[in-house]
Amino acid sequence: MTDLLDQLRAIVGAPNVLTEGDLTAYEQDWRKRDRGKALAVVRPGSTRQVADVVRACAVAGTSLVPQGGNTGLAVGSTPDASGEQVVLSLQRMNAVRELDGANMTVTVEAGCVLQSLQEAAEKAGYLFPLSLAAEGSCTIGGNLATNAGGTQVVRYGNTRDLCLGLEVVTPQGEIWEGTSGLRKDNTGYDLRDLMIGSEGTLGIITAATMKLYPMPAAQLTAWAAVPSLDHAVTLLGLAHQYLGAGLTGFEVMGQFALSLVVKHFPAMRVPFAGDESAPYCVLLENSDSESEGHARARFEALMEKAFEDGCITDAVVAENLTQAHQLWHIRESIPLAQAEEGLNIKHDISIAVSRIPAFVASTDALLQRAIPGVRLVNFGHLGDGNLHYNVQAPADGDSKAFLRDEEARVNGLVYDAVAKFGGSFSAEHGIGALKVDKLEKHKSPVALGMMRAIKRGLDPQNILNPGRVLRA
Amino acid sequence: MTDLLDQLRAIVGAPNVLTEGDLTAYEQDWRKRDRGKALAVVRPGSTRQVADVVRACAVAGTSLVPQGGNTGLAVGSTPDASGEQVVLSLQRMNAVRELDGANMTVTVEAGCVLQSLQEAAEKAGYLFPLSLAAEGSCTIGGNLATNAGGTQVVRYGNTRDLCLGLEVVTPQGEIWEGTSGLRKDNTGYDLRDLMIGSEGTLGIITAATMKLYPMPAAQLTAWAAVPSLDHAVTLLGLAHQYLGAGLTGFEVMGQFALSLVVKHFPAMRVPFAGDESAPYCVLLENSDSESEGHARARFEALMEKAFEDGCITDAVVAENLTQAHQLWHIRESIPLAQAEEGLNIKHDISIAVSRIPAFVASTDALLQRAIPGVRLVNFGHLGDGNLHYNVQAPADGDSKAFLRDEEARVNGLVYDAVAKFGGSFSAEHGIGALKVDKLEKHKSPVALGMMRAIKRGLDPQNILNPGRVLRA
Repeated sequence: MTDLLDQLRAIVGAPNVLTEGDLTAYEQDWRKRDRGKALAVVRPGSTRQVADVVRACAVAGTSLVPQGGNTGLAVGSTPDASGEQVVLSLQRMNAVRELDGANMTVTVEAGCVLQSLQEAAEKAGYLFPLSLAAEGSCTIGGNLATNAGGTQVVRYGNTRDLCLGLEVVTPQGEIWEGTSGLRKDNTGYDLRDLMIGSEGTLGIITAATMKLYPMPAAQLTAWAAVPSLDHAVTLLGLAHQYLGAGLTGFEVMGQFALSLVVKHFPAMRVPFAGDESAPYCVLLENSDSESEGHARARFEALMEKAFEDGCITDAVVAENLTQAHQLWHIRESIPLAQAEEGLNIKHDISIAVSRIPAFVASTDALLQRAIPGVRLVNFGHLGDGNLHYNVQAPADGDSKAFLRDEEARVNGLVYDAVAKFGGSFSAEHGIGALKVDKLEKHKSPVALGMMRAIKRGLDPQNILNPGRVLRA
Repeated sequence: MTDLLDQLRAIVGAPNVLTEGDLTAYEQDWRKRDRGKALAVVRPGSTRQVADVVRACAVAGTSLVPQGGNTGLAVGSTPDASGEQVVLSLQRMNAVRELDGANMTVTVEAGCVLQSLQEAAEKAGYLFPLSLAAEGSCTIGGNLATNAGGTQVVRYGNTRDLCLGLEVVTPQGEIWEGTSGLRKDNTGYDLRDLMIGSEGTLGIITAATMKLYPMPAAQLTAWAAVPSLDHAVTLLGLAHQYLGAGLTGFEVMGQFALSLVVKHFPAMRVPFAGDESAPYCVLLENSDSESEGHARARFEALMEKAFEDGCITDAVVAENLTQAHQLWHIRESIPLAQAEEGLNIKHDISIAVSRIPAFVASTDALLQRAIPGVRLVNFGHLGDGNLHYNVQAPADGDSKAFLRDEEARVNGLVYDAVAKFGGSFSAEHGIGALKVDKLEKHKSPVALGMMRAIKRGLDPQNILNPGRVLRA
């Protein structure tokens, strides 16, 4: 191993091969569920160096764990406990290589922090629409490796939909130069999308060409009270029809989720909180290419129709940006309010939008029968069919004991229900090391067989992130 | 072989195994460049039957050529000359399985004709936005297998972007049931996008779940004269900014292309034809979620700004639907007018939008030096960076002789120029059997190596469409 470390030092420079001191930031996952031990953390500064590192590791038979901001939620970017894996950190490769305004694209290195990318786009007068809670720390390479979602998927899609081309280092240490800014290219298999979402198991993304969008002239936010989840789904259809591609956000929140915000952040004014005629509230965002006045008029036309149809019982439209931020802030405070209330069992699931009301009704009932008094913190990106369907201990229960004793059973019940409704047990967060078993249980054996054949074909030595996504 | 034919008859019924009579529709490609000979044309009526046919062929070592409407332009869906391949026609599998309005999705079988799918969507009040010249004959399975483009890619993307899930029969005759209507699903590798665009070489698409969109309230078309291609690119940027996602079409046409329309279809009124201050015209389409009045006001605001900036010298906005159709009809008549003028050498290329003016200037000059008097029929989907950059014989030349003598040299010059500008030599039409050599020449060896590893991994017997995309 000393040989390999010497070679790595020769490639990236000794100060960029970390073997001592506190490596927690590289060895522990974001949610502190797992702590591994790396042979070394290697920080290359160029694609050439990444390729050289991979080749040296391949010769030595040492596996690599690619890592961006290490903010993933499925333990996919930290080393195992063996002390034999190299963590390959892309953080030093953070340049914005080229912003092409006329082509509406930007080419960036994998280690570029999402927020830096958003800012570079904005400075040039464009929008880069990927936005998520970890944007100050996560990197675009990690976003691509996990196909991250976020708050504007209903309009702009997941990270996959924002990418036009990739530069990738293969498990053999070759460089595939595919950072094309082309919007049409039918020359062979779609290697780009195969790499995206493969969580560093098929190749190491070193750079990417991403789409830019025109900056909207105005963004307006509304908050509506709906008599049921069914009505929320109908409201979504109306919003698509009235706002077209202006609809950039559609979030649903159950009253129990909102009550936790009211309880733990009493300074926050939550519209229609506790309104018994409205078990759910919806946050809508309208991004308009024309003007704030036009955005407001469209919202008003939508709300008028929604009232008429009985889809909403009440609504407010933010008067200004401050109010808009306040409404989003309520939505974003739900996870924190949950944490204040005590640990809970989290799920990141998706179901066809049309089937969500039936799924929630039947799964709520199932859980109540299994654990009387259990509380459902139900909220999420209804526009994408993506719910954070979280299960909290009964009001008088001990949340730590609840998590310890009930997590496996609750997960079983919820994931079986998701499967019954044709949904996905991991809508946004991926598989990592955390959900390898669940993938084996819930994915079709035919799909798993194809995945294994692809992994074997591209990485026969199983050198890239072994044991993640698929069992080693 | 009699054994195999008997087995196939037992699976799909004797009337659905064609071996005699005129099989031209199955054996000859759309543009009549190639005529093969099939062992049999097999027409299964269900996914189960497709799987059984594949297994029977695999045991016999007989390869299969999947076929939809057989309208492809790269000879990808007809058998070779050996008389030993089975053509698997999906045309009988043409059902619309389920249209889910609230989820804005439709699940259809592969053999459903594109126009039938458009009509089913429209009947339910939704838009299925894929639209291309062959829509009356091509099938959605073929559109997916080739990742077809069309006229509205600038807003809705290619076929890939419209697909949420697939049902696929593998080369081993297994069924992967993946017709999910989920907009978010991060559970493993992106097998869907790997299958899309693989031209029937990795699996047989038997059904798909496609996205629907709200029907626009109004669609308006404009026609503008621009002083240069550079100005057309600037106009595109303004159109994105002023119309946002309302911009559903942006086509550019050179004056020589338009002059052919004027010459061969004198009844057609072509705005700004022959205007010497405007070497190019642009057709813009604005799809508005509000009203025709609003669409018109937005177009006027855009045109005012474009005049001010000197991007356009003149413009007309269609007064009504008839005028809009007339403007589109001019654009769509260019290929016919070309054919009237005589054979030419066609290219379906893409370049980053920002680099198109420089590409055209340098490649025009290159071709003029090589073949003095050569005429360039330049038009295409500028919004997607996709040009139909076609090369016509000098005015006094014999077009047949030109095609025979110059095609290889002209292709060489054009494709090398495309490569120099980082473009693609096949933007929309794919590889098929026609461009296997060009793929080997222009694709990165690393990408080709990954493609071969994937093909070997998924289809080790090389039973699906051998020799297409990759050499057998």
